[in-house]
Amino acid sequence: MLEAELSDPTPDLRADGAAALAWIASYIERARELPVLSRVEPGEIRAALPQAPPDEPEPFAAVLRDLDDVLLPGLTHWQSPRFFAYFPSAGTEAGILAELLIAGLNQVGILWRTSPALQELEEVTLDWLAQLLGLPPGLHGHIEDTASTSTLVALAAARASSPDRRVVVCSEQAHSSVAKAAKLLELELRTVPVDDAFRLRPELLDLDGVCAAVATIGTTSSTSVDPVPEIADRCRDAGVWLHVDAAYAGAAAVCPELRDRFAGWERADSIVVNPHKWLGVPMDCSTLWTSRPDAFRDAFSLVPEYLRVSEEVASLSEYSQVLGRRFRALKLWTVLRCYGRSGLQERIREHVRLAELFEGWVRDEPGWEVLAPRPFSVVCFRRDGSDADNERLLERVNASGELFMSHTRLGGRYVLRLALGSFRTSEEDVRLAWDVLRREAAALSPAGA
Amino acid sequence: MLEAELSDPTPDLRADGAAALAWIASYIERARELPVLSRVEPGEIRAALPQAPPDEPEPFAAVLRDLDDVLLPGLTHWQSPRFFAYFPSAGTEAGILAELLIAGLNQVGILWRTSPALQELEEVTLDWLAQLLGLPPGLHGHIEDTASTSTLVALAAARASSPDRRVVVCSEQAHSSVAKAAKLLELELRTVPVDDAFRLRPELLDLDGVCAAVATIGTTSSTSVDPVPEIADRCRDAGVWLHVDAAYAGAAAVCPELRDRFAGWERADSIVVNPHKWLGVPMDCSTLWTSRPDAFRDAFSLVPEYLRVSEEVASLSEYSQVLGRRFRALKLWTVLRCYGRSGLQERIREHVRLAELFEGWVRDEPGWEVLAPRPFSVVCFRRDGSDADNERLLERVNASGELFMSHTRLGGRYVLRLALGSFRTSEEDVRLAWDVLRREAAALSPAGA
Repeated sequence: MLEAELSDPTPDLRADGAAALAWIASYIERARELPVLSRVEPGEIRAALPQAPPDEPEPFAAVLRDLDDVLLPGLTHWQSPRFFAYFPSAGTEAGILAELLIAGLNQVGILWRTSPALQELEEVTLDWLAQLLGLPPGLHGHIEDTASTSTLVALAAARASSPDRRVVVCSEQAHSSVAKAAKLLELELRTVPVDDAFRLRPELLDLDGVCAAVATIGTTSSTSVDPVPEIADRCRDAGVWLHVDAAYAGAAAVCPELRDRFAGWERADSIVVNPHKWLGVPMDCSTLWTSRPDAFRDAFSLVPEYLRVSEEVASLSEYSQVLGRRFRALKLWTVLRCYGRSGLQERIREHVRLAELFEGWVRDEPGWEVLAPRPFSVVCFRRDGSDADNERLLERVNASGELFMSHTRLGGRYVLRLALGSFRTSEEDVRLAWDVLRREAAALSPAGA
Repeated sequence: MLEAELSDPTPDLRADGAAALAWIASYIERARELPVLSRVEPGEIRAALPQAPPDEPEPFAAVLRDLDDVLLPGLTHWQSPRFFAYFPSAGTEAGILAELLIAGLNQVGILWRTSPALQELEEVTLDWLAQLLGLPPGLHGHIEDTASTSTLVALAAARASSPDRRVVVCSEQAHSSVAKAAKLLELELRTVPVDDAFRLRPELLDLDGVCAAVATIGTTSSTSVDPVPEIADRCRDAGVWLHVDAAYAGAAAVCPELRDRFAGWERADSIVVNPHKWLGVPMDCSTLWTSRPDAFRDAFSLVPEYLRVSEEVASLSEYSQVLGRRFRALKLWTVLRCYGRSGLQERIREHVRLAELFEGWVRDEPGWEVLAPRPFSVVCFRRDGSDADNERLLERVNASGELFMSHTRLGGRYVLRLALGSFRTSEEDVRLAWDVLRREAAALSPAGA
């Protein structure tokens, strides 16, 4: 049999790649001008796509063309400097180019030997980041996709370390991923009320039957900081695993002047920080450290201890649920190098400064109020009026396309959130947000009306 | 306060990007010449890296330089056409460039509105792939990172649908991810013996107390195919969830002439196929379909049904453990378009042809034997002699750097595996593998010795 003659529809990395780069560079340059929140209706993108795959190869240029013609209206622009919703997750140029390298190398971490560089760079980079954040030396670190997974595997390790305790405790302001993990692990979730600054009330902490307590530094709604030292004391006394969720706020620990917010986290059994939130790393990259790696191996390694030999290098898959891992360390490493400690500090400080500035504008403006303390780069506020008024205001602001914000509820009230985190956001963008908010508020209730 | 002046260490997408593209293009061009399995010792890469992060920004060019100087020796070259170990996972140029776009767009799928295009493209692309594989219409599909997660969430849905049954059953040849998922879900794992072709023996299937049965099409060791129709009959009668693991082999269903191996999979409650294995998509991309999406929502959605309103679009996070998702659909869509049905069929057929060719060489060569039927693109074989002889042979072959193969155990015997799956592998590469195997075997036991 003759060797088959294969058609070759392979895109050219250099030529098609240059077109892809140019597309992305142009996209990022014009991101400020695009309506931040997508305006399509449900089903609109689906309807614009063919209902069946092509039988014959199409050129890569057709994909690029459809990015503009079909997909662009369906994107919400997380890369826009005016994306102020949720926690921003803006990918820097350093991280974007690193993703290209990751895909080109296409390493698959399973055993150490399947990519020694992947495993050892992940270990070193997690050490680097721990140093930047002021975490104690000697922690075991690895990368997961998102904090949902990091928290899940941490709670699984906690469950394995206290098999007869079936309760997880956290504040009522903790992220929904804690409840989701508890559900999968069939652990009971016990929530603790918060004080008027939305912090867990340690005097109400009941650790009876508890295998893990989750303390949050930077809760999702208000970025409140739980009293970690008191919680850590209680966990120590009761032999309870302490997991610290600093998925968003952890990045701020690169600035020594912000470290007071992190008091006590060095005593945690596990800590999660998401560099894809506030450190410029593209989705996805969640870093997880533990002082108890053996508990992770108990929970996840299928290799019985007595079969392990000293020559064998433990693979990172023995500390987590998944077997194969991407070379995510390369993008974290690239971002840490391209910015350095000083570059990261500058950006975090600038975001905190801009949030403080915005907070001041709100506080000084009659008819507006700040609703929560602001330890980091998120401002919670509202305008005088009903919840419905504020909801309508937010809808108008987002419909303008000029920016995108989200909301939450605090103390039963509807609250607007302005969240900073993109390395591309400038003071001008924050001023624009405030201008649009006041403009739309005035349009809703004209002076004297 | 004056606006801070930030230093700008941002890499230039076009200039630094062109250098990154050139590096990757050159890497792929020379991949055939690199020693496939990394030759570094444990700790060697770690020792070559600085032990602390940089204080000041470094240029992106320094990262590229260190790819060559520091990391390259620590890579095992999954992109090499001569990577024949495990299941190959070679990323095509189409997929690599799509990863660049994914990172540049940096979409984060949480709710539908956070990226309508991400969610709807994922739905459409999963429909496309289901059509290509001949799966029935109407399945609900979504993307997970790897089959470990796909199988975990499928078994979690199965557990939720039969809360009083706490057993998962699979053959003793099933992938370790089944055991790992069962451990996390606290389900008992019951393994069923296989026949002499390494297929689950359905007459030994005990479904008492079982919430899910896992049938494998293309087991990890030998790519054997469990008798899915018989297992599906038994599952139907007992009301047991059937999960089909076709992580590797599923791609072969694009070829109608190979569909007989997939008989019965259309009756599964859930099916996993990994496009990052045999469909040219870079790590990671695992596709999961189900005919019972409501069971997934029961297991994963935290929104109680009575609060759902018709206008609201269900988000994909309600069908899985993680909340935020990458725009993985874009790379799958790009690869399906750049190759089309015909291009994918050509490549799968070529791999099967090459595997058949290699199998024939082994069968016809005195002193060698084929150890298992070969339904797809993996050949299991060994040379006459002891297990230790074969292990030594494999070590020599891999130490040559000319190719990389792995091994398994079948029926208690040490077995060599040649696995095809890279779109870059040619007949010449397979001939080289056979030449190297015979050369090293001869060196170990010279003729007449």
